[in-house]
Amino acid sequence: MKTHTLLMPLDMHLHLRDGIMLENIAPLSAFSFSGAVVMPNLVPPITTLEEVKAYKQRIIAAVPNDYFEPYMTLFYKNYSKAFLKSVVEEIIAIKLYPAGITTNSEGGVSSFDIEEMRPTLEAMSELNIPLCVHGETDGFVMDREAEFMSIYELLATSFPNLKIIMEHITTKAAVDMLDKHDNLYATITVHHLLFTLDDVVGGMMMPHNFCKPIAKRPEDLDALLSVALEAHPKVMFGSDSAPHPQDKKENCGCAAGVFSAPIALQLLCEIFEQYDRLDNLQAFVSDNAQNIYGICPEFKEVILEKRPFVIPNIYANVVPMYAEQALNWAIADIE
Amino acid sequence: MKTHTLLMPLDMHLHLRDGIMLENIAPLSAFSFSGAVVMPNLVPPITTLEEVKAYKQRIIAAVPNDYFEPYMTLFYKNYSKAFLKSVVEEIIAIKLYPAGITTNSEGGVSSFDIEEMRPTLEAMSELNIPLCVHGETDGFVMDREAEFMSIYELLATSFPNLKIIMEHITTKAAVDMLDKHDNLYATITVHHLLFTLDDVVGGMMMPHNFCKPIAKRPEDLDALLSVALEAHPKVMFGSDSAPHPQDKKENCGCAAGVFSAPIALQLLCEIFEQYDRLDNLQAFVSDNAQNIYGICPEFKEVILEKRPFVIPNIYANVVPMYAEQALNWAIADIE
Repeated sequence: MKTHTLLMPLDMHLHLRDGIMLENIAPLSAFSFSGAVVMPNLVPPITTLEEVKAYKQRIIAAVPNDYFEPYMTLFYKNYSKAFLKSVVEEIIAIKLYPAGITTNSEGGVSSFDIEEMRPTLEAMSELNIPLCVHGETDGFVMDREAEFMSIYELLATSFPNLKIIMEHITTKAAVDMLDKHDNLYATITVHHLLFTLDDVVGGMMMPHNFCKPIAKRPEDLDALLSVALEAHPKVMFGSDSAPHPQDKKENCGCAAGVFSAPIALQLLCEIFEQYDRLDNLQAFVSDNAQNIYGICPEFKEVILEKRPFVIPNIYANVVPMYAEQALNWAIADIE
Repeated sequence: MKTHTLLMPLDMHLHLRDGIMLENIAPLSAFSFSGAVVMPNLVPPITTLEEVKAYKQRIIAAVPNDYFEPYMTLFYKNYSKAFLKSVVEEIIAIKLYPAGITTNSEGGVSSFDIEEMRPTLEAMSELNIPLCVHGETDGFVMDREAEFMSIYELLATSFPNLKIIMEHITTKAAVDMLDKHDNLYATITVHHLLFTLDDVVGGMMMPHNFCKPIAKRPEDLDALLSVALEAHPKVMFGSDSAPHPQDKKENCGCAAGVFSAPIALQLLCEIFEQYDRLDNLQAFVSDNAQNIYGICPEFKEVILEKRPFVIPNIYANVVPMYAEQALNWAIADIE
């Protein structure tokens, strides 16, 4: 049987939620990945050292059987340098949300007043804390990310020593930004390497493929594929796996978020094999992230086997992406 | 109380379905409108004189209390001139669907081979039977209508005496076609005068706003509004009201179609009043259609009253557009 081994795969953008949901889904990420950057958009969002530590403990308690490193983040607001110094050892990054732009982001940034943000962003630069950004304006849904590029440029040029991660990019416009500014990086999800808007509303309406940012046009998909498949050194895998209970997805007014964590590596193997770029997958799912963030996860080997695998129709009460579809790659039970 | 009177309002694109659904919804259209062009995409589609007559009788039987003229259509396939002569008095138009492009369109046209279609389309030209077209390719969802413009041009130039109705147009590209070819006309829905893609997937996913063609970009909405509000003489109102049972809309993989028939005139009053163009509404909802199709409905007066009206959350088992929202215009109970 053909196999493909990944060392220390990392999910650089993950929603683990809290409570029962956390307990149900965290083991699925821990089975596939060495670690994950854990988003702070709980209710209320994570903004204190105590909350970071307590959430990290809850995550670790939820994954008793696997080595799994939760790389913690704070929810961006203006913080003092003294506070940032006190928390720098406990976090990997700070996540910025424009206010109201996605799930639990109501307390986010409502205007990009650089002078108001300067003390925080300069302190982050000095302390080498990366800024992760959900880059969307409140404009027309297909334009929100492209419209945000001017804000990325403003941030990148105003704070040249700040590492800025353009999270879950979905457009050619964002791909084109990567080589324009040294301090801009990006994560890409697996679903944005597979979907366009056609997969959301092109045939029937597909709530389990609905996320923010929404999947865009075919030429955007092509641009994302090209930098992912070449494992562009400024690009990392981040699933943005975002579970919601089945009834919140399948009823009228469904919530945004694709649940992909348990099948992400299998799908990535399929995609990279299809384009004959399997050799680049290691860099995309781990090495680039280690270089960009300067992290060294403990040794962990995840072996993918080329054998039929049918995605479950549900994990606990969460319907995964591609539920019940057959894949060609599965994760070996032994590690 | 301010009122606005419409004479013989017409819905030039309506799905009345069949059976119980027909019985439930036809009276709602008959209450608001003098008549409607009834789409033939039943299962199986309407393709014979007998089916046209029988369906018309079922419609009339479903609206015992109102004057309401069902203008019948055939489902396009290649027909002989002899057949078309036999049916011409019973139909107002023939509706062409690209195969598989929307609800119950599987038997539609799978390639636009003009020579293969020529005998039918020439016979239609000679018999003055308009061709109504669902103009979408099978391309990317936001481009499907714009990509179809070359087929409209081919049809318009190949059959200069054929009246071609671009049904439920949604793009600036289609608006721009109106003045390019004498024999191209269009219907516009009320929801496409209100929605962009933002209303479908911009916030939460809104299944009751999901239809084909899907609502497009803000500049498309502006173009549609401009020709509707001026009551461009080649433009008619056609609701494309397309009921589905609630469970088919609100479950995973929801069907395409907005149910607007019972609230269309009220919404149109709101829109035209908002832009101070109420005087043009009569032309948009009746006079233009009478001129284009050469029809003379019996006298019927529908009085809109400016008073609060809350849209029901459901009509029978069908959730309407804007369910439970408050409008400023209602239809008077007396006629």
